Amino acid sequence: MTSREKHDRMANAIRFLSMDAVEKANSGHPGLPMGAADIATVLFTRFMKHDPQNPKWPDRDRFILSAGHGSMLLYSLLYLLGYEDITVDEIKNFRQLGARTAGHPEYGHAAGIETTTGPLGQGIANGVGMAMAERLLRSRFGEDLVNHYTYVLAGDGCLMEGISQEAISLAGHLKLNKLIVLFDDNNISIDGPVSLADSTDQCARFAASGWNTMRADGHDPEAIAAAIEAARNSDRPTLIAFRTTIGFGAPNKAGTNKVHGSPLGAEEIKAARQALGWTAEPFEVPSDILDEWRLAGLRSAKERTAWEKRLAAADAETRAEFERRMRGDLPEAFDSAIVDYKRKLAENPPAVATRNASEMALEVINDIVPEMVGGSADLTGSNNTKTSQTKPVTPDDFSGRYIHYGIREHAMAAAMNGMALHGGIIPYGGTFLCFSDYARPSMRLASLMGIRSIFVMTHDSIGLGEDGPTHQPVEHLASLRAIPNHYVFRPADAVETAECWQIAVESRTTPSTLALTRQKLAPVRLEFEEDNLSARGAYELRPASDEAKVTIFATGSEVEIAVKARDMLEERGIPTRVVSVPCFELFEEQPEEYRKAILGNAPVRVAIEAGIRQGWDSFIGTDGIFIGMKGFGASAPAPELYKHFGITAEAVVSAVEGRLAAK
Amino acid sequence: MTSREKHDRMANAIRFLSMDAVEKANSGHPGLPMGAADIATVLFTRFMKHDPQNPKWPDRDRFILSAGHGSMLLYSLLYLLGYEDITVDEIKNFRQLGARTAGHPEYGHAAGIETTTGPLGQGIANGVGMAMAERLLRSRFGEDLVNHYTYVLAGDGCLMEGISQEAISLAGHLKLNKLIVLFDDNNISIDGPVSLADSTDQCARFAASGWNTMRADGHDPEAIAAAIEAARNSDRPTLIAFRTTIGFGAPNKAGTNKVHGSPLGAEEIKAARQALGWTAEPFEVPSDILDEWRLAGLRSAKERTAWEKRLAAADAETRAEFERRMRGDLPEAFDSAIVDYKRKLAENPPAVATRNASEMALEVINDIVPEMVGGSADLTGSNNTKTSQTKPVTPDDFSGRYIHYGIREHAMAAAMNGMALHGGIIPYGGTFLCFSDYARPSMRLASLMGIRSIFVMTHDSIGLGEDGPTHQPVEHLASLRAIPNHYVFRPADAVETAECWQIAVESRTTPSTLALTRQKLAPVRLEFEEDNLSARGAYELRPASDEAKVTIFATGSEVEIAVKARDMLEERGIPTRVVSVPCFELFEEQPEEYRKAILGNAPVRVAIEAGIRQGWDSFIGTDGIFIGMKGFGASAPAPELYKHFGITAEAVVSAVEGRLAAK
Repeated sequence: MTSREKHDRMANAIRFLSMDAVEKANSGHPGLPMGAADIATVLFTRFMKHDPQNPKWPDRDRFILSAGHGSMLLYSLLYLLGYEDITVDEIKNFRQLGARTAGHPEYGHAAGIETTTGPLGQGIANGVGMAMAERLLRSRFGEDLVNHYTYVLAGDGCLMEGISQEAISLAGHLKLNKLIVLFDDNNISIDGPVSLADSTDQCARFAASGWNTMRADGHDPEAIAAAIEAARNSDRPTLIAFRTTIGFGAPNKAGTNKVHGSPLGAEEIKAARQALGWTAEPFEVPSDILDEWRLAGLRSAKERTAWEKRLAAADAETRAEFERRMRGDLPEAFDSAIVDYKRKLAENPPAVATRNASEMALEVINDIVPEMVGGSADLTGSNNTKTSQTKPVTPDDFSGRYIHYGIREHAMAAAMNGMALHGGIIPYGGTFLCFSDYARPSMRLASLMGIRSIFVMTHDSIGLGEDGPTHQPVEHLASLRAIPNHYVFRPADAVETAECWQIAVESRTTPSTLALTRQKLAPVRLEFEEDNLSARGAYELRPASDEAKVTIFATGSEVEIAVKARDMLEERGIPTRVVSVPCFELFEEQPEEYRKAILGNAPVRVAIEAGIRQGWDSFIGTDGIFIGMKGFGASAPAPELYKHFGITAEAVVSAVEGRLAAK
Repeated sequence: MTSREKHDRMANAIRFLSMDAVEKANSGHPGLPMGAADIATVLFTRFMKHDPQNPKWPDRDRFILSAGHGSMLLYSLLYLLGYEDITVDEIKNFRQLGARTAGHPEYGHAAGIETTTGPLGQGIANGVGMAMAERLLRSRFGEDLVNHYTYVLAGDGCLMEGISQEAISLAGHLKLNKLIVLFDDNNISIDGPVSLADSTDQCARFAASGWNTMRADGHDPEAIAAAIEAARNSDRPTLIAFRTTIGFGAPNKAGTNKVHGSPLGAEEIKAARQALGWTAEPFEVPSDILDEWRLAGLRSAKERTAWEKRLAAADAETRAEFERRMRGDLPEAFDSAIVDYKRKLAENPPAVATRNASEMALEVINDIVPEMVGGSADLTGSNNTKTSQTKPVTPDDFSGRYIHYGIREHAMAAAMNGMALHGGIIPYGGTFLCFSDYARPSMRLASLMGIRSIFVMTHDSIGLGEDGPTHQPVEHLASLRAIPNHYVFRPADAVETAECWQIAVESRTTPSTLALTRQKLAPVRLEFEEDNLSARGAYELRPASDEAKVTIFATGSEVEIAVKARDMLEERGIPTRVVSVPCFELFEEQPEEYRKAILGNAPVRVAIEAGIRQGWDSFIGTDGIFIGMKGFGASAPAPELYKHFGITAEAVVSAVEGRLAAK
């Protein structure tokens, strides 16, 4: 068997596993795995540094299948290379309930799946984040411990999505030369030829953003190898546009959209077996070919041993710190630093906007947690995300901890996900809450994957004032709370902000959004409390003077209004308690007994939030009083808007009195 | 006064109005209006075809300020050119409550504001839509009636946003040669120099997508004019990168980020007055300069008269049709066609997926409503958006009515908005409901503007099956319902789908989303009803046999389950009614009496929806039974997922029986 024959048979093993699995599931995308099998075979047999026996080896090369619909490519590779999690039974169980082999690669389902892909373009931006993480960690721990490539396999769809432009222009700017995008340039999209919808010269486009670009025949192993070799030696990130035939090997359907997202059918598979000379039964890989693949799986074992030795030889402190960061544990002093900070706050509770309170909390956290890496989508001064410790990263110097992400909310969020997935970094990044919409697909994926990305969203209501309704979130708190496994924090003052930050940094498997005000707020937490009260999601901030007739629930900037309304009501002889609700999701997690006690049984329940009512009925019931927004905001100074939209203590008092009179 | 002096003074009028207004408001962005004043002055005095006296003239050139934060540029222009809506008092009232001069340009606040901008990148994509509308209408009505340019002024921020890539690659592909992007290339972003975050060669990038590109000095009126002239004669869309100085004229702050988003301060404005030799008082424009501007406002009056004559000379049918379409009225036969179609459906109610039902309804609608222009983000066969009448548009032939948008959900939605804003077209476009997240910023703007964009979102739940959680919406119905002024329809069968389509097409000031199933559904509307029952948002689909003990509310694919559960409960002697809820928002609009009657007073209320509970409490109360999702979905065949997540008639029956037993 010549080396070319060996290559072909190894690639064909991917092709037939993919065809067979899609056929058995009667659902899936065989075209990409068949078309990209040669590229993947060359990459994994000649270049990838990874170890199926130690899939979490921190210095492994990362491989991301950005075109996630071609999941059978990844599953085939993992099985063939000897990753334990993906057995042939898993392949046979493709797309079935409980299988590790979901329709699209799901992070956490199996070792070797570096990120969840499927929503197009995300994988490229995750890859940018991983390559950033690599550079950041390399500049801290040295190339003895950190020195790896990030490979991304992307299709036309990934490149048409806008997020790809944000990602590639960021990567080009930062000169992420160890990032290599393998473009499966097959000219076919689901609707038909790419020429139905696009005429972009992708190489020219990437070059315009400072990338090294190449074209190569994606079915010629030597051409593939030469291109990857050249890419690895580039001083810039590289795009290799591999001309491929989608569904390569299917004699009648290859090169058409018929092979994109549907099973080939028994007949076409039979014809492919003949055309490619593949005589094995479905799901069977000839033992000599499986052996070759398993051998390829061992190719980095020596490198890994050498790396282990280097880690063992590092000084104890470096080693402990590297291991701590890669485990995702926080420094021991973290909790006590927050408590100390809260103690200091209580001495002289500051009246600040929560975006400023966030900066103050970050000053404390960034001092203690060196893996915090911040940034903003060109709103640094508004988001207050930069602290004294976080020097900006530049293309030539990654010793900093602050990223100027540019006006790229979507790629920022996805790159943050990539950094969190890489490990060793806790990423946070800011924009205006209204523009969480731009980042939403990546924020959802952070939730689905269960990773620690922290989104800092300032200017969180009409309280931002004059910028007007395009910039004023009214539905965003509700729409973010709707995402499963996502903590949406809306702290009321500096103490709650510190507490919410503490929870966000400690939540290893749930991403967080901090919704923060532009405008200054009066402090409401005036006494020192060692416990993190926000961790319960909602808690009684002010008791009623007697058996409560009214409970007022509020979040963020409206807690101040709630407290004022309570005092007015109490003055009128109406016992009123105030519950602060910094996080719906955490309250949902509390024991029933606690929830009941907090909800209480005052005859009148009020909620105040400068957003829409959706979601609040679970606190106040359908007959509760809601003081908030019913539609879009307006452009005017903030105090006028609060009056205009009737979000005032006076409005609360009047609504409560009206209700009590009617009872 | 030389012509250059005149130009300079006219441009300075923009600069000082902008400085003064931002200063008085103590809020806003003076830098862009000052930097782009020369470009705008040349454009509006030498090229723009428009008529301040007839601002809605259908064949006017469109001007879009994509960099919406520079709103004072637009307001200054509209005032100077003589648009009635923008008086000097409005300028003085910049960013104040009730002013037409909101912080960012708001569509509908004043004639001459062609679209709402502020969220960056949207304006470029709106412009692509407007240029598409122009081509589409030109190919129908001829260039006597339709022949205009679309100019977009964009900044670095617009070009960094991913949506811009989607928009420019679509425009380049379609060869929209009457689209001209004026890039205010001032090298400054909010955080500082653009070089902090980006190194893209924008001309090279646009060229890669088939654009004509040029560079010019943005402060030299002759260079500006020459570039625009050349752009107008191009056979491709054109980007002109105008090198400008942000805050031009402010002696100490120009060219820095200090002038981007804050008032200049009295001292710097004084210095600017000296530097530019401007002696007029704040908000005062010297009368000779105002006269020159008003003259510029008259420059297209003759052209408009000539156009009116051409319209008058057109044959009566063409003229009536053109005017009807530009008014946004529907053909008279529209309603009866829907009723006829529903009558036909009742003869043999089909068991189809609602995405297929949508295609069937569109076959009827597209036959009668020629201004319907469809499309899909590369999911044509899955979204069922293409009907027999809708031939695809190609770069050289715009006689079609179907757009292959490519994998560009965001630009699709924004281009649809642009077409709706242009007038003469009712755009609809499809993707998977899960990927509404990618399009969300534009969907929100459609709602804020109150325009008729119709989003066709198929694969609307775990019912899509094997693609798994990345593709399965669970929070999307809730998060879209959260957007004010947005109809979210989830029809249950072919009849409801037709009704929802009817409402969507008739709703001139509210955009719609149709959430449609991938999977086949049993018909539930078996009798012919002339009335559009879905128009009430919720209605009783099945009565109880006796006084109802149970009301089951459901939407879309879960209505079938509700009907089955009702039958099972009735069999067990438990009188149960079913309410179908195709649209929350329309139900919200109903009179209290109707709402009460529909909610009813059965002791047990149940809601079934294969999404999260958020929003449902208003139907079932906080103690109601909710049968739906609590977290993300999974990859498996749809029927298994419904069982796995407990969304079955059996689960409903068991929950109801449990509740009744406990009472």
